[in-house]
Formats: sequence, C-alpha cells, structure tokens
Amino acid sequence: MIEVALFGAGRIGQIHAGNIARLPGVKLKYIVDVNRPAAVDMAAKYRAEVRSVEAALADEAIGAVIICSSTDTHAELIQRCAAAGKQIFCEKPVDLDIVRARACVVAVTRSGVTCMIGFQRRFDPTFAALKARLVAGEIGDPEMLIVTSRDPGAPPIDYIGRSGGIFKDMLIHDFDIFRWILDDEAASVYATGSCLTDPAIGAAGDIDSTAVTIRTRHQRIAQISTSRRAAYGYDQRFEVLGSKGMLQAGNHRPTEVIASTDLHVSRDKPEPFFLERYRVAYANEMAHFFDAVNEGKPVTTTIHDGVKALELADAAMHSWREKRVIEL
Amino acid sequence: MIEVALFGAGRIGQIHAGNIARLPGVKLKYIVDVNRPAAVDMAAKYRAEVRSVEAALADEAIGAVIICSSTDTHAELIQRCAAAGKQIFCEKPVDLDIVRARACVVAVTRSGVTCMIGFQRRFDPTFAALKARLVAGEIGDPEMLIVTSRDPGAPPIDYIGRSGGIFKDMLIHDFDIFRWILDDEAASVYATGSCLTDPAIGAAGDIDSTAVTIRTRHQRIAQISTSRRAAYGYDQRFEVLGSKGMLQAGNHRPTEVIASTDLHVSRDKPEPFFLERYRVAYANEMAHFFDAVNEGKPVTTTIHDGVKALELADAAMHSWREKRVIEL
Amino acid sequence: MIEVALFGAGRIGQIHAGNIARLPGVKLKYIVDVNRPAAVDMAAKYRAEVRSVEAALADEAIGAVIICSSTDTHAELIQRCAAAGKQIFCEKPVDLDIVRARACVVAVTRSGVTCMIGFQRRFDPTFAALKARLVAGEIGDPEMLIVTSRDPGAPPIDYIGRSGGIFKDMLIHDFDIFRWILDDEAASVYATGSCLTDPAIGAAGDIDSTAVTIRTRHQRIAQISTSRRAAYGYDQRFEVLGSKGMLQAGNHRPTEVIASTDLHVSRDKPEPFFLERYRVAYANEMAHFFDAVNEGKPVTTTIHDGVKALELADAAMHSWREKRVIEL
Amino acid sequence: MIEVALFGAGRIGQIHAGNIARLPGVKLKYIVDVNRPAAVDMAAKYRAEVRSVEAALADEAIGAVIICSSTDTHAELIQRCAAAGKQIFCEKPVDLDIVRARACVVAVTRSGVTCMIGFQRRFDPTFAALKARLVAGEIGDPEMLIVTSRDPGAPPIDYIGRSGGIFKDMLIHDFDIFRWILDDEAASVYATGSCLTDPAIGAAGDIDSTAVTIRTRHQRIAQISTSRRAAYGYDQRFEVLGSKGMLQAGNHRPTEVIASTDLHVSRDKPEPFFLERYRVAYANEMAHFFDAVNEGKPVTTTIHDGVKALELADAAMHSWREKRVIEL
Repeated sequence: MIEVALFGAGRIGQIHAGNIARLPGVKLKYIVDVNRPAAVDMAAKYRAEVRSVEAALADEAIGAVIICSSTDTHAELIQRCAAAGKQIFCEKPVDLDIVRARACVVAVTRSGVTCMIGFQRRFDPTFAALKARLVAGEIGDPEMLIVTSRDPGAPPIDYIGRSGGIFKDMLIHDFDIFRWILDDEAASVYATGSCLTDPAIGAAGDIDSTAVTIRTRHQRIAQISTSRRAAYGYDQRFEVLGSKGMLQAGNHRPTEVIASTDLHVSRDKPEPFFLERYRVAYANEMAHFFDAVNEGKPVTTTIHDGVKALELADAAMHSWREKRVIEL
Repeated sequence: MIEVALFGAGRIGQIHAGNIARLPGVKLKYIVDVNRPAAVDMAAKYRAEVRSVEAALADEAIGAVIICSSTDTHAELIQRCAAAGKQIFCEKPVDLDIVRARACVVAVTRSGVTCMIGFQRRFDPTFAALKARLVAGEIGDPEMLIVTSRDPGAPPIDYIGRSGGIFKDMLIHDFDIFRWILDDEAASVYATGSCLTDPAIGAAGDIDSTAVTIRTRHQRIAQISTSRRAAYGYDQRFEVLGSKGMLQAGNHRPTEVIASTDLHVSRDKPEPFFLERYRVAYANEMAHFFDAVNEGKPVTTTIHDGVKALELADAAMHSWREKRVIEL
Repeated sequence: MIEVALFGAGRIGQIHAGNIARLPGVKLKYIVDVNRPAAVDMAAKYRAEVRSVEAALADEAIGAVIICSSTDTHAELIQRCAAAGKQIFCEKPVDLDIVRARACVVAVTRSGVTCMIGFQRRFDPTFAALKARLVAGEIGDPEMLIVTSRDPGAPPIDYIGRSGGIFKDMLIHDFDIFRWILDDEAASVYATGSCLTDPAIGAAGDIDSTAVTIRTRHQRIAQISTSRRAAYGYDQRFEVLGSKGMLQAGNHRPTEVIASTDLHVSRDKPEPFFLERYRVAYANEMAHFFDAVNEGKPVTTTIHDGVKALELADAAMHSWREKRVIEL
Repeated sequence: MIEVALFGAGRIGQIHAGNIARLPGVKLKYIVDVNRPAAVDMAAKYRAEVRSVEAALADEAIGAVIICSSTDTHAELIQRCAAAGKQIFCEKPVDLDIVRARACVVAVTRSGVTCMIGFQRRFDPTFAALKARLVAGEIGDPEMLIVTSRDPGAPPIDYIGRSGGIFKDMLIHDFDIFRWILDDEAASVYATGSCLTDPAIGAAGDIDSTAVTIRTRHQRIAQISTSRRAAYGYDQRFEVLGSKGMLQAGNHRPTEVIASTDLHVSRDKPEPFFLERYRVAYANEMAHFFDAVNEGKPVTTTIHDGVKALELADAAMHSWREKRVIEL
C-alpha cells in the first residue's frame, strides 16, 4: 500500500483523485490546495485529510505526490518533493521557463526519485495502439508525421494571458507526441500563426491558429497544425507516413449511431473536450505511474521529456515572433 | 462489326443506346418503338434508322437485338428474335407469367441463340468485386446472406398496377443476387409484407415493404428486406457471412466530402437512384453481352436465371398472400 | 445507503459486483453461491460476507438482491425475494419455461417489489442514443427493423445442451431489442435456422444460425439474423427504417487506428465479446436499477418485458420446429 | 462544330483525345507529335489526321488547340497558337521558367484568346463539391487549409532530372488548390524537404518529401505535405477549417466492399494513380473548356492561375534551398 498526497484540487486534480481511488494498493491520504473549500470537498469525497505542503511532505508514510496545482508552482514543488524523497507525478508543463525546468531535472536526478510528467496522450488507447504497431514495423520506417490538434473553444482571456502562450500551453502536448511517435529529435523548427478566432487573444499577445514544421536529425518531417476553435468538438488526430504504408489515429465518438436522412448520412461529432476524450488515458497514465513506482521500473514520460517539449515550444515561439527558421 | 436493333426507346433504352454507341465493333442500326417520336429522336441521336419489328428482324445483317420495350412484349419478342436467329439481350423480367417465360426458354434453347437477361447488378463494380473475393475463398464457406434493397420512392400508381407486384417488379433483382452470390437454390421461401408508405399502393393490391427469408438446398439462409421508400436515396447493400469472415457491399456516394459541424459529421447520402448507382454496371453489362456474342462465349445471366428469379418471385407472392412457408 | 445481496459469483456476477462497488450509496453486503470458493473470493475482494440464501433474505437490512446465478434458479429466487420484500435485479431469462416465468410475474406483482430483468443492451450508449433519437422523431414513423446479432464463437456443447436453445439463450436479447425499439408487439413470428458452424450443436438438438421475421400489430416488420460464429468478433448491429430516414447502430471498436498498406485500408474489428462491448451498458444498467429503487421510480426493463421476450422465443422455437408461421 | 488540333499524343494526350471524342459539337481533326508512330496511332483511333504544328495552325478551320506535348514546348506553342488566334488548352506547367511563363501571359492577353491551364483537380467531383459548399458558407470563413498529396511511387530518375524539381512538377497542383480553395494569395512561403524514398532522387538534385507552409494576405494558414511514395496508392486529400466547421475531401476507392476477418475490417485502398482518380475530372475539364469557348465565357483556370502557381513553386524552391522564409 502506497500513500499519496495530491497537490491541487482543481479540475484535473479531480480526475486524478478519482483514478487513484480505483487503483488497488494506493491510498489517497492528503489533499493540499490554497483554495481550502476545494481541498475540504475533495478530502470528504475520498476520505482523505486536508494538509499543508509542509505537513504532507513531512509525513514519512507518504510515498508519492501528485502535483496538479497551478503551473507556476510546479518547479518549486518538484524540487521540494525531490528533496523529501517522494516519487513525483507532475502535470505538464514542468515550468514556463526553461531554466527553471532544467533546475528541476537536476534536483530530480540528484535525489534519484521518479518524476513522471503528465503527457496523458501517450496512454490514449488509440495513440498507444498506433505507437505499438509503428514500433512493430507495420509501416516500415516512419518518414512524415502530420498532427492535427484543435480545441473546441479558447479558454478565458485571463487564462490566455498567464498561459505562457499557445506553444507552451497547447502545443506542448503535440511536441511530446512528435518526439514519442518519431523517436527522433528536432534539428530545425519553423512556426507561424495568426489570431483568427478572437481579437482579444491577439490583444493578449497570443495567437489561436498555428502551423509548425519540424525537421528531425534523421531528415524526417513533421507538420503540426492547431486551432483554439473547432466548431465540431475536440479534434485530436495524427498520421504517420512510413515506407510501407500509413497509420492514422482518428477521433473518438460518443456513440456509433449513423443517421441517414434526405440531407446526408451523419455520425456523432468527436468527443467534446479532453476530459471525455482522454478519460481512459488519464486512468491508464495514473496506473502506469503507480505500477512503475511499485515495481521500481522507469516511467514512460520523464521530466526529461517535459524539458524537451518545452525546448520545442520555446523554439516555436521564437520562430513565430522572429519569422525565421530556428536551428536547434 | 455487329449490327444491332434496339426495341424500346424509353429510359432504359436510352441507357443501353448510349453504352452501345461507345463500344467498338458494334453499330446501332435500327430503333423500334410504338412511340414513334421517341424512336425518331433516338435514331437521330445515334444516326440509326426507325424500323418496325418485322423489318428489323428481316434484315439479315442484324446480328443482335436489345429488348427493352414494355414487359408484356418481352416473351413474344424473345420468341420472334430466337426464331430469326438473332442474339438477344432482354431486360428483366422475361415475363410476369412463369408459363410464358418457360416457353421462351424452350424457344431460345431450340434456336441456339444467346439470350442474356438484364440483371445489371451482377456487373456493378462493388458487387462483382465482392463475388470475386467470395469465390476466391476470402471468407470461407458462405452461410448467410442479408440483402437490403430500398428505392428512394414508389413509381406512379398506374405503373404499380401493371407491374406484376413488388416481388416480380422490384425483388426480382434481389432474387437474382441471392442465387448468384450463394451459388445455391432455394428449398423454401417465406415472405411477408405491408403497405406502409402509401395507402394507394395497398388499394392497388400491392405492398411496399417486404421481408423474405429463403432456406437453400445446402441449408444456407438468406434474408431480403425491401421498401419502396428510403428518404435518403437508393439503398443497395448486401452482406455475406462466411465461416471465416464477412463481405459487405456498401452504397456508392456521389462525392467523398465530409462535413463536420456543431451538429455532426456528415457524408453524402447514397446515389439517388438506379440510373446513377448502376451507370457503370449498365455499361459493363452491355460490353459483356457483345463480348460473349463476338467470341461465342456464354453470358453470365442467361434466360434460365431469368426464369429462376421469376419462380422465386412467384413463390414469395404466394407465401405473402397465403401467409405460409412455400417449399420448392 | 442500500445494502445488497448478490446471488451467483460467476462471470456476470463479477461484472455486477464491480459496478455496484463504484456506486455511491450502495453497499455489497452478502455473496451467495453454491460454489463456496467463488463466493469466498468475491467476498474478500469486495469486503463482503458469504451467506446462504436463507440468511441473506432473513436480514432485514438487505434492501435489494442481484440474481445472477444459473438460469434454473431464477424463478424460485425471484419468488422468494419477492416474498421477502426485497427489490430484485435478475439476469435474463426469467426462466426457460413460460409458465414458471408467468408465476414470477404474479409473485412480483403481489409483493409490489421492483423486479428488473438484465436486458443490458438497452443501456448501451449507442443503442440508447438511437432509441432517444427515434423517440424524438428524427426519422418519422419506424417501419422496418433489421437486427444482426452474432457471437464470436459458440459456447461449450454442454452449455448448449442446457441453454434452452438458441432462441431462448441468444435471441432473447434480440427479441427485447425488437419490442423496445419498435414499441410494438408481435402479431406473427416466422423462424428458420440451420446448424452450419459445428455438427455437435445439431447433435445437441440445437441450431447455430437463425433467421426470424416478425410482423407487428401495427404492420411493421422486423428481421433478425443471428449466428453463433463471426470470425471477426462480436457483431451487434441494428437499423431502423422510418418514414423520414434510417438510424443505424454500429459496432464499437477498441481503437480508432486506421492502417493503409499496399493491400487495403483497415480498422480494428469489433470488440471481442459482450463483456467488452457492453461494459458501459452493464454499469449504466446497475446504476439505473439503484436509482429507480432509491427514488421509487419504475425500471426500464421489467419482469413483464422478460416474459414477453420469452414468449417470442417460444414462438420462434415452435415456428422453426414446425416449419410454419406462428400467429400470436 | 469546333475543330481541334491536339499537340502531344502521349499518356495525357490520349486521355484528352478520348474525352474530346465524347463531346458533342467538337471534332478532333489533327494530331501533332514529333513521335510520328504515336501520332499515327492516335489519328487512326479517332479518325483524325497527322499534321505538323505549322500545318495545323495554318488551317483556319481549327478553332482550338490542346497542348499536351512536353513541358519545354508549352511556352512556344502557347505563343504561336495565340498569334494564330486559336483558343488554347495547355497542360500544366506553363513553363518551368517564370519569365517565359509571363511572356505567355502577355501573348495571350494581347491576342485575346482563351488560354486554359490543365489544373484538372478543380473539376474533380469531390473537390468541386467541397469548393461549392465552402463558397455557400457552410463552414463560415475559412481559416486553415491542410493538403495531403502523395504519389504511389516516383517517376523514372531521368524524368526527375528534367522535371524542374518536385515543387514545379508535383506541388504545382497543390499550389493551385491552395489559391482556389482559400481564394487568397500567399504573403509568405516556407518549404523544407528531404530525400527519404530513394537516394537517386537526391543525387539528381531533388527531394521526394516536402512540407510547405503558406501564410496568406488575410492571415490564413495553409500546410501542404507531399511524398513521391505512398505504399497504399494515390493519396489526394485536403481539409479546410472554418469558423463554423470543417470540410474534408477524401480519397476515392474503386469499390465499396468491406471485408471483416479475424484480423481487421478493411476497405479498398485509394485509386492507384491520377489517371483513375481524376478520370472524371479530366472529362469535366475538357467539357468546361469547350463550353467556355463555345459560349464565350471565361474559363475557371486561366494562364494567370498557371503563373501564380509557378511563382509559389519558385518561392518554395528558394525557401527549401536557402532554408529561410520567403516573403512575397
């Protein structure tokens, strides 16, 4: 039985708490949040107790910590948890600042603890099956990757302002998909973008539509296109062209109803947003973390992956702002 | 160069005339129709001449005849053409009366001419590919066949009245599909049906919705369901369950556009009706007839097939009227 | 908090136990099974206790009973639970014998308890969404229903022998789907079938491939085709033709990966069997039962539905054996 | 009746000749080719005559010329035809050199003749339907365009060497699609690429895999990815994201057969190559040209469009070679 403290009782914290509750051999012991009513509610729901960061880390019985508090707290919490010898699961991004993120790598490496970053998409059944079939050689050598990543709608403008920009907030997942699927690193990055859906996003210094091109060390090519708005739901697709064929990951739908009318033949639009689409992925991710911790095995998405995705986001942001190709 | 007389300048006659015009080595020489303006128009379009049945059959240069006049003329024309030694292509059905149809078989057999019946569905690219894969053993032994056959809307009531009823008019094609796909003959037939789309059809003594079940000599099972009305277009599907899998023939669509909106993800509905869906099938069918005639090879859909389909239609009609299973 | 006794710690019992454990306000208190090791294992897993039927029913704190023991025990248990005033959830079928099943209706009605029968398909997300759209009038009046229901493989022969035959064992679900979707009752039933997949099934007096046609009181038509063997997995589809269009319920797939190779473009085959396909349906079904019990509301699938489906299975069996149409 | 001279009796010339032969009111009179046997064969097939360029242009009865000879002859032939007052249909590209292409525009404008460039994709039923629905406002304002364009295999290396490079040879079509679909012009172009399928292509100074990003004057974004090799056939897709939804153009398949086996559920791969995929498009294109000429209406794909696509190809080539963004 491993005992756990969870930092951050917000939306994603609730997902993780629910998944932890279903895992055998794991006990959610402490809830930590500066928003005390949220912490109290969650603690009541899962028969856990509310604690401060200090108190939670001071409890030697706590073996693992789940960090899903706001992004600006991640780096400090990772370092404190590492110092306390706790196994760490931390939501993406490690930090908005690459220097602070790298400091976390040092802290984690020095302490020897596990630090898994929450790139849950790697645990999506469709994405994971595609990766496995790619590794099995089903389409030969991968040559090109095309990623389509669109949110159903933009977050509130005040969130946009503190998000670190679309490349760090939204594309960080797509950069991780790129590295994971191609098993290769970027040699150059070109990014462009526009503000097309809401002028307020532009006024906040950000964009809502991006196109990124990555050339890898092995001359492979990846294209990523994103938008903050897809009228038809959460659009999460990618395809890999290989020497012997293509693998595509399509959207998930709520149901398999097909309607034929005098207008057309229609199916459900994709799942509405990430909580629905990645519901199974979040559960698989948490199970993977505790399996790895319990069995002393490496995790699939390390803090190193978190830093590499952030480096790509930084490069893309520079490319967009300076209208030039960034060599890495 | 084979010279041809075409009997019947109506809708299906125009399809055949256009396809004949594109075939090398075939010349459309005479057009015959009691509706003289229609015959004159078609003759002008294809640089042919208008003739009577007698005159057309008396011309020794005429090697083949295409019969697409009204159903009640088929039997007599087949017999006259056979007597004149012409190769025959005749639209389905051979006749509404099984005794008269069998007399045609006798006449054709005695004369030794080819007599192909227009079951054009066997020449549809999708249906023909499915059949070829079935024969190649892709799904092992066929066990069950499910046929869905729906028109976009009923014909005029006066046509219904002289059509011979839905089993002979509409299901005759499905009965041929059944025999062709399973390569087996019916041992028993059960049919039921209702008048659900238009009371006038019922008043005309007919039904518009049917369900037929056939058990074959080899214990296979086929289910056919039809309707005179599908709001979404012409629905022509079937599927074969075999010991090693399933083959399905789906509908054809005009385009491959997919639209995703806040309501759903939609595609084109099926082709509107048989002229569009079986456009390629009609061309392939006519090419097959002239290939067979030119090379002295057997045709795929003989007058025997026409009679067997009619026997099934007769059995189904009896089953429906008498509310009992018909053993054959 | 409602306390529950579960009768039958087999495969389906484990599904229900897992779903009950996730429901707030429900406590799994007793496990009853003649196979004592199975009962002990399940009790340990869910922190419940092993009891006899008598002891479980004698505990006044027990508010509800889940009956998922072998079919031959259902009728007696329903009657004892009803007499004890317990709310009842019972797996299908009520009984293999229609007289015994009707006696259960009398017992349940007299006692006033709820008795829900486990027709879990009504709770499948795809099927339930289709039904809701049908009720909302999306395709006008329903006219025809085509049901395809195929298992991936036959159960062991000794199970076949005591199953009551394919109509009561397998098609009972399809008969319930028919009644639920069309909201209509059968006026006549015709069934035929063959033994095509394994001669041992025939030797056991049963068949493995069936075709059933039902005409309803409102002249609607339903066709059901089933097989004990589909090489490609668990095939669970149906379609409804209405006056304004068609609604189809398609199969569920494990993932949305699409592979394009030099051979073809392929997707996952359907989910392997009912535990995977109806995983969500089983959870929804159990939640519905306890919601209804807690709020004093009627359940969606009553013992009356169980009896009506059994009547159809009986009629179909007679039709098959006697090779005739059964009027109801 | 308009009389026509066709220059170039190669593969694409044969397509055009066949389509012209089916058009009412158009007569294929002369065939011109430096490969005299090819010209003789084609002339025999279509009852036309073999002539020299001079003789063909000198015949005042010739109203229109179809130029489908080798690329290096296009510019000179356009100018001579324009000078002779003939209506012109010319295969893409106008020329590999932008200066020579612009000279053709001057010649055509001065003479007042029609000069249609063979961007047949605009006449593909799927692409044309998508464009019409986009123009009708079905998805609001277009924001992003993603184009996937993959050949089944590379042409012979000696063709590669004189093709002008992948951007002018292959992507010229995609650049035209970009301009047509978004109805916007490029403001900046970034292109990168690799030689991944065959080192011989690299040795010939070319690449086989490209990624192009275009930002438009109205801040829209387009991404194009291409490959000379797709193991699964000819892959021709694009999608447009708009403010109210998405429209996608999918591949065409030879048949609608679906096979379900113990491995997967599969469909046909796409049509093998452009002659099959764009068969209907080529016919529609030729009909459009002669309709426009006969009725004095503008053509949809002018020589101006040919030059604009070439400018984009030039910009992309520079971007790739110089590894920088090109502002236009």
